Amino acid sequence: MAQENNHEELVLSEDPNHPANLICSLCKNFYSLGWVTGTGGGISIRHDSNVYLAPSGVQKERINPQDIFVMDFPTKSYLRRPPSLKPSACTPLFMASFTKRGAGACIHTHSQAAVLCTLLTKGSTWSIANIEQIKAIPRPSTGGYYGFFDKLVIPIIENTAHEEDLTESLEKAIDEYPDTCAVLVRRHGVYVWGDTVWKAKTQAESLDYLFQLAVEMVKLGMEPAGPITPAE
Amino acid sequence: MAQENNHEELVLSEDPNHPANLICSLCKNFYSLGWVTGTGGGISIRHDSNVYLAPSGVQKERINPQDIFVMDFPTKSYLRRPPSLKPSACTPLFMASFTKRGAGACIHTHSQAAVLCTLLTKGSTWSIANIEQIKAIPRPSTGGYYGFFDKLVIPIIENTAHEEDLTESLEKAIDEYPDTCAVLVRRHGVYVWGDTVWKAKTQAESLDYLFQLAVEMVKLGMEPAGPITPAE
Amino acid sequence: MAQENNHEELVLSEDPNHPANLICSLCKNFYSLGWVTGTGGGISIRHDSNVYLAPSGVQKERINPQDIFVMDFPTKSYLRRPPSLKPSACTPLFMASFTKRGAGACIHTHSQAAVLCTLLTKGSTWSIANIEQIKAIPRPSTGGYYGFFDKLVIPIIENTAHEEDLTESLEKAIDEYPDTCAVLVRRHGVYVWGDTVWKAKTQAESLDYLFQLAVEMVKLGMEPAGPITPAE
Amino acid sequence: MAQENNHEELVLSEDPNHPANLICSLCKNFYSLGWVTGTGGGISIRHDSNVYLAPSGVQKERINPQDIFVMDFPTKSYLRRPPSLKPSACTPLFMASFTKRGAGACIHTHSQAAVLCTLLTKGSTWSIANIEQIKAIPRPSTGGYYGFFDKLVIPIIENTAHEEDLTESLEKAIDEYPDTCAVLVRRHGVYVWGDTVWKAKTQAESLDYLFQLAVEMVKLGMEPAGPITPAE
Repeated sequence: MAQENNHEELVLSEDPNHPANLICSLCKNFYSLGWVTGTGGGISIRHDSNVYLAPSGVQKERINPQDIFVMDFPTKSYLRRPPSLKPSACTPLFMASFTKRGAGACIHTHSQAAVLCTLLTKGSTWSIANIEQIKAIPRPSTGGYYGFFDKLVIPIIENTAHEEDLTESLEKAIDEYPDTCAVLVRRHGVYVWGDTVWKAKTQAESLDYLFQLAVEMVKLGMEPAGPITPAE
Repeated sequence: MAQENNHEELVLSEDPNHPANLICSLCKNFYSLGWVTGTGGGISIRHDSNVYLAPSGVQKERINPQDIFVMDFPTKSYLRRPPSLKPSACTPLFMASFTKRGAGACIHTHSQAAVLCTLLTKGSTWSIANIEQIKAIPRPSTGGYYGFFDKLVIPIIENTAHEEDLTESLEKAIDEYPDTCAVLVRRHGVYVWGDTVWKAKTQAESLDYLFQLAVEMVKLGMEPAGPITPAE
Repeated sequence: MAQENNHEELVLSEDPNHPANLICSLCKNFYSLGWVTGTGGGISIRHDSNVYLAPSGVQKERINPQDIFVMDFPTKSYLRRPPSLKPSACTPLFMASFTKRGAGACIHTHSQAAVLCTLLTKGSTWSIANIEQIKAIPRPSTGGYYGFFDKLVIPIIENTAHEEDLTESLEKAIDEYPDTCAVLVRRHGVYVWGDTVWKAKTQAESLDYLFQLAVEMVKLGMEPAGPITPAE
Repeated sequence: MAQENNHEELVLSEDPNHPANLICSLCKNFYSLGWVTGTGGGISIRHDSNVYLAPSGVQKERINPQDIFVMDFPTKSYLRRPPSLKPSACTPLFMASFTKRGAGACIHTHSQAAVLCTLLTKGSTWSIANIEQIKAIPRPSTGGYYGFFDKLVIPIIENTAHEEDLTESLEKAIDEYPDTCAVLVRRHGVYVWGDTVWKAKTQAESLDYLFQLAVEMVKLGMEPAGPITPAE
């Protein structure tokens, strides 16, 4: 199944927008955002029939294209496995977004703001309402995006001992929340996907902005999903 | 009206202070300040009779000069429209600062501190007083700047479903607050302008500093616009 | 004992992964994380029989390979002493992790989050439980890592007037907590070690993430080591 | 008095440690630390009989060596004045540290943490005790540095309408607190000096670390200058 030869041509390119180069530059970006501290988190990009995956347990801000795994999406077999590295434990979760939503990229972060939002909310969803940045989040059922006067709802699933064991509940959340582009994992982080790598990034950044803002609102005694109070 | 050919000479220059280059380098700067997360926010520069505009919905820290729109200020017609990009939805708001104030640049941020200040203030203005950084904010009615012992007042307008629908209330706030160089938008962010791009940047940074400081003061039980308490 | 000639060959290499180069690039990294502000903190790497040490009292983000000390691990004698520099006062503490645990690298930070955690905890240990990032911390007694449902316990030792006087209590904590890869120092910071430089970095980052998260949890009224509250 | 020709040889050098180059690289550094937001704050370096000064009102992260003023320290006359720029309004305050303390560099920041500490303290001094980072602060009366068990005391002066009007009270604070290497300015920021540029930087960073830590301690209900509570 896995092929042991070293198909470097799949990951070496001078195009900065080649998926292998993008994974490296975006992981540096995500490191500076605090999303992939201590090798946590990651990103996978699907391009044509290829899925590009960062390895497990490496410094995300120091990944090189040679470290990238490539999988054939239709057959789920690896076209390239860098020697002495393991594919990310997030792989089945990234795949769920590709398979169930046709996503072009999926980002997993251990953002502290995401974790805090899952701790501030006992229920199975997290919400925020009436913040401009919500408008960056797509709402497939309407063919467009959330509006300013809408309430954004993101499902939360419970964490498990092993990352791959999250797959079933993540897939269930994807099915039950057809409008969501993200699933929070309690005490763990968040998975965010998008039609393209740039949409995934925009949505991951916008959600993280909303998570951060919500934590600050709670500190200041405000309810992130509360009604708009009329001006006095 | 819009011209479809690709006038690259309007945006390609080796001068780092050319407006098209400045928009790119300043957007990188603003991204690291958290002002343009998730493609939100932006900047427009007016130079002679040309207005330079960043496109809508692109990663602000990765904009290239080729992505920049150029408008003829007197006729409001586009001299350059990059193919497959849309001009920023903020365009009419940027234009308001150019038309009503003769601004040389206008910056729009989704700064979380700005949003929090609009949430902490129910009324139609936000204020802070007696902080040195206030002295970076111009006060046209005096021909100079705010003084340390002054109270800075920034109008807040209510957010709308569509960004362009803010134009009327933003123009009204500009008229009603002739000393202001900024308008806060509740639950959204802030627009800040200046006579030059550098003055706009200084004023946007100084206001953001004051927004951040005010949020921290509230967390610590202090009133940002309160009187100076005499030393004990 | 100390040799006064200037063995530059021990620290000059074009390999970015040479320990002398790594100390320089990691110190820049740590500076941007706020770990080595004001020349505090540092890192030592052990490679084969050589121990590489940053000098005392220099700007950590501006260290050059020529500034690095090299010690012969078996004899504890210096193979290289840069003129006019002093070895780090942390040296005996770094050595404790090499000698007692066979560590390949040891990182010392003055992280504010670490200091705050030692202030929030009166006892001789700090704990956090049920956060995904815990899984990045090794647990030698099990041959593996902490699990999500485990409680992580890090010993805290009391600070002393002189850094080198911490050696005895640090060694005692290492003996008494065979599973720990870190020792907090009250009102001071933390020492974190790992089998390799990358494991030390991953563990230091993961612990700092947990320290930061714990401080935020306390601000929000939550107990970092408390039981998981069932979803409502 | 002021000489109008453009002595570029005083500021152009390929040595990165030339004072004109250092001011540029350190101002970039300070911008990323949030110390010189909106053109606030600055640094002056004294080298032999020359004093190097950044101009007023420019983007600190974009200063070039050609923008630097040079003053002859014995005569206080300018050896170089860049055309169309004004010397920093902080100049007489920087000079006070050179004249009264023989400092080699003086740093002025608008750090929000410094401002918050002056707001949290009604009296004429700010204090913190028993934090390791205090040991980076010199204590001239002992010929050495503060110890871990000492209490650090920094004088606070009241702000004035014009920066240069701070000179008298700053000089008075320098006289009254012979051990201090810094003076806080209420609702404004801090001045920190050192024997060399590197000592000034280390002390400014260490004090800012302590200001930040103190603000967090207050948020968590702790007294930064309180006694050490014995371990339970």
